[in-house]
Order: sequence, then C-alpha cells, then structure tokens
Amino acid sequence: MQQLLPKSERYEFRAEPFHCDFRNQLFLGHLGNEMLNAADYHSDARGYGMTFLMTIHRAWVLSRLAIEMNEMPCINDRFQIETWVENVVKYFTSRNFAVTGKDGKVYGYGRSIWAMIDTVSRQPSDIFAVNDGIIAQYVDNDHSCPIEKPSRVKMDEAEWVRTIDTNYSDVDINGHINSVKYIEHVLDLWDMEWYRNHHVRRFDIAYIAESHQGDQLSFYRKETAPETFAVRIMKSSGDSVEKVETCRILVKFEKD
Amino acid sequence: MQQLLPKSERYEFRAEPFHCDFRNQLFLGHLGNEMLNAADYHSDARGYGMTFLMTIHRAWVLSRLAIEMNEMPCINDRFQIETWVENVVKYFTSRNFAVTGKDGKVYGYGRSIWAMIDTVSRQPSDIFAVNDGIIAQYVDNDHSCPIEKPSRVKMDEAEWVRTIDTNYSDVDINGHINSVKYIEHVLDLWDMEWYRNHHVRRFDIAYIAESHQGDQLSFYRKETAPETFAVRIMKSSGDSVEKVETCRILVKFEKD
Repeated sequence: MQQLLPKSERYEFRAEPFHCDFRNQLFLGHLGNEMLNAADYHSDARGYGMTFLMTIHRAWVLSRLAIEMNEMPCINDRFQIETWVENVVKYFTSRNFAVTGKDGKVYGYGRSIWAMIDTVSRQPSDIFAVNDGIIAQYVDNDHSCPIEKPSRVKMDEAEWVRTIDTNYSDVDINGHINSVKYIEHVLDLWDMEWYRNHHVRRFDIAYIAESHQGDQLSFYRKETAPETFAVRIMKSSGDSVEKVETCRILVKFEKD
Repeated sequence: MQQLLPKSERYEFRAEPFHCDFRNQLFLGHLGNEMLNAADYHSDARGYGMTFLMTIHRAWVLSRLAIEMNEMPCINDRFQIETWVENVVKYFTSRNFAVTGKDGKVYGYGRSIWAMIDTVSRQPSDIFAVNDGIIAQYVDNDHSCPIEKPSRVKMDEAEWVRTIDTNYSDVDINGHINSVKYIEHVLDLWDMEWYRNHHVRRFDIAYIAESHQGDQLSFYRKETAPETFAVRIMKSSGDSVEKVETCRILVKFEKD
C-alpha cells in the first residue's frame, strides 16, 4: 500500500519585483497564480495532479476561487502557501489555502472549487475513479479556513465599462483564456487613483464558461455596497452578436 | 576585505503551467522576467543590487534586452539561468545570461544593458561610486555569450497595427509600464494562427523612454526580412496629440 503523505503541505514563494504593483504589493493575480501552483504541487505529489491526469485524459477545471487578504506580501517578501483538500464529492472538490509569512504572520486565505472533466468528451468525470479514489484519504478535517465560502454573486443590470480583445498572451495551455488573466483584467477596471487609497479585501470569481483567443470580453460593473462591486464578463466570438456569460466576480475593496 | 563570490551564478526556475502558451512553451515575457530575477539575485548578493541601491537613492534601469533561443522550456521543465557581468563603464553595464536545462541542454542566451540613475534627479549616476566600485571586481572575461550584441534597430515608415490603453496591471513598482509587459504586448501583435507554426528565435528590445499608467501605446510594425519584424512603440499621454517613441524592437521568428 502506498505510503500517505501529510494531508496539508506548505510551499515557499517570493513576491518578485515585477509581480508587484506601484505600491510595492504583490498583484492579486500573481498571488492567485501561486495558489494554483501550490494546488498543482500538492495534488501531483499525492497521485491526482494534472501531470498524472493528462495521461488518462482527465483534467481539473477551476470553477471558483475566493481570496481574502488582511495584508498583501510586499516586494521581496518570502511567504508560504499551505493547501489542503477540504472536501470531495463525485464531480467536485474544494481546496483551501492559507497564506502566511515570517513570525506567524497571516496574510490571508483562499478557497477554491474544482471540477474534473474528461478532456475528450469535455464532460464531468468521476473524481473517485482516479487512482482508486486516493483523494478521499487526503480530505483534511483538522484545518479550518476562516473566510466565507464562495457564494453566488447576484447581478441584475450592471453598467458596461469596457470591451477588450483577447490575444496570444491571454491564452493558456488548454487554448482557453488563462484563469489568472481574468483577475488582471477585472482589477484593471479601476485606475491608479483608486488604488492609491484602496486595496482588495476579498476577490471572488466564478468561472462559468471558457473563452478563447480572439473572443472579445465585455466587462459590466455594479456597486452593490460601498467599495463592493459585482462584475460580469461576457464573451462574444467572431461575428456573433450573442454574448455569453464567462465569469462573475465580487470584489470588496477597503479604504486604506 | 570582503570575500568575493564567484563571478557568475546559476539560478533554478521552472516553467510554471500558467506561464506557458497554448503550445505548452514558456512565454518569452516570463523568461525575460526570470532573467531579470536572476540579475537581481546576482547583483544583490554582490553588493550592487536594487535592494541596496534603494537605500542610496540609486536604481538600475534596463536599457536593452536581447533574448535568442534555440528552444523554449516546456511546461514544468526545470531550467537554470546563469548570469554574469560582461563589462562595466561609468554609466552602463552589460550583463549576460545562459539558459540551460538538464543533461547540458542549452535553451538559449540573453544579453542586457543597464544604466544606473539617481532616483531623485533621474540623472545618470556613476556606477563605480557604489560600494567602492565593487562591480568591477565581478567583470567576468572567461564567459562567452555566443549571440550577437543588441544592435540599433533601424526603422523608417512602419504600419500602425494597434493602440492600447495601459492599466493598473501594466505598472511596476516605479510607476512605469513594466519592462516585461512591453514584451507581452509586442508578441500579442501576432495571433494564434501565426504562433501555430512560428516561434520566436530572437527578441531584441531597446527601452527608450518611460511610459506611465493611462498612457496610450501605439504599435507600428514593418517586416524587414522574411519572418523578421521591426516594431516601434509610441506613447501618447493625456490629451496631448504628440507621440513619443518608447521602445524599439526587433523580432525574428522561425517557421517550425
């Protein structure tokens, strides 16, 4: 029988200079990227990671990501991301993250929800069918994640802000617009003046449909509470006038 | 007397999944970023890095970057960047890079030229005035870098391709458009169809003027030889109609 690893594991990162904003703080998109890297390292080592899944035509698809930060790592700060599986059912698993620094500093937390798909049929795939359902042995009930679960973002009419083209650099290894690039594009809806005295307290994104290079992305925004905004991204492809909802986001800022 | 470190040093990196393009190859912009990280680690350890320079109101400013690749690292590949100082004169230094992989594989090389400025006056600053000119002791004459030096890119009339807005995510810790983002924006001038059967053989960029968030960047392009393009980036700020040259680039593609 395979020797089990610890249920949670912690990985080391650094806030690289070119990954920091004009206030010397790590960009939230880059932090999200490091969370996805931590998820990758953790699941790869435990027999249900992307590298193994590719060999059996399966893949993880990120469905939700929520990040809530007390503070962001600053330029050159070393930080750790600890990650563990909170729960798993047939088609979905939830994975949490804790972002910490030296002397026990807690920068913040993340929550994510993933689906498994069959990369040939693009249909949901039974997670327990992978490696004898080994993931179930890694569900970690001892860890708490003290931020709210991702919740459905309600949106009615919202104001159109911007439409952008998507390009080569936006596209990931699967030919879809990169999950991290959506975060960047959303945070770009506010200008430097705004960021001079606001920071992101919580960022909550639901990935609803995939978009591809050449799709245009339209951003709609509505302030739902002071400093809190719901954002909807709609894609349009080619000459089609039909717009399809791609992502829905809730961003809570805080004044400094 | 301070103990000298080896003149050149090698750092470990990995082609992270979200830093790879739809062909599973590391984006050139991310490779450039890792070169700048290697430069940072190397110079910091040797007493003339950004962290120390900040304390004396000095900074390195990247003036030229040339990258020439036989092959790009693929997803999850571990690679090394070795870097060393090739030369130093009063206001400029040249630093080279070798990108290698396992079993002695050579992915490619880089060359860069840096100026030092006084961050208060924004004027050039004497490199030898820093830390008793210690950098001179690190000039490495034993290393060769078998790619051509950056050369002045000649451009006459070129075709306008695109004008983009710059946003929060484009801006670095100095409040300028991030050197790496220019690389991304330039490579975005070609679409996925192009990249399906072309890869970048050499990318050569001269940073001429700084641009800031809110500036619009206009891209002009001219094919100067088969698969070889000169690109000029012009910025326009606020309501000014005047356009100022910001970067000049030469991209040599190769057909697969």
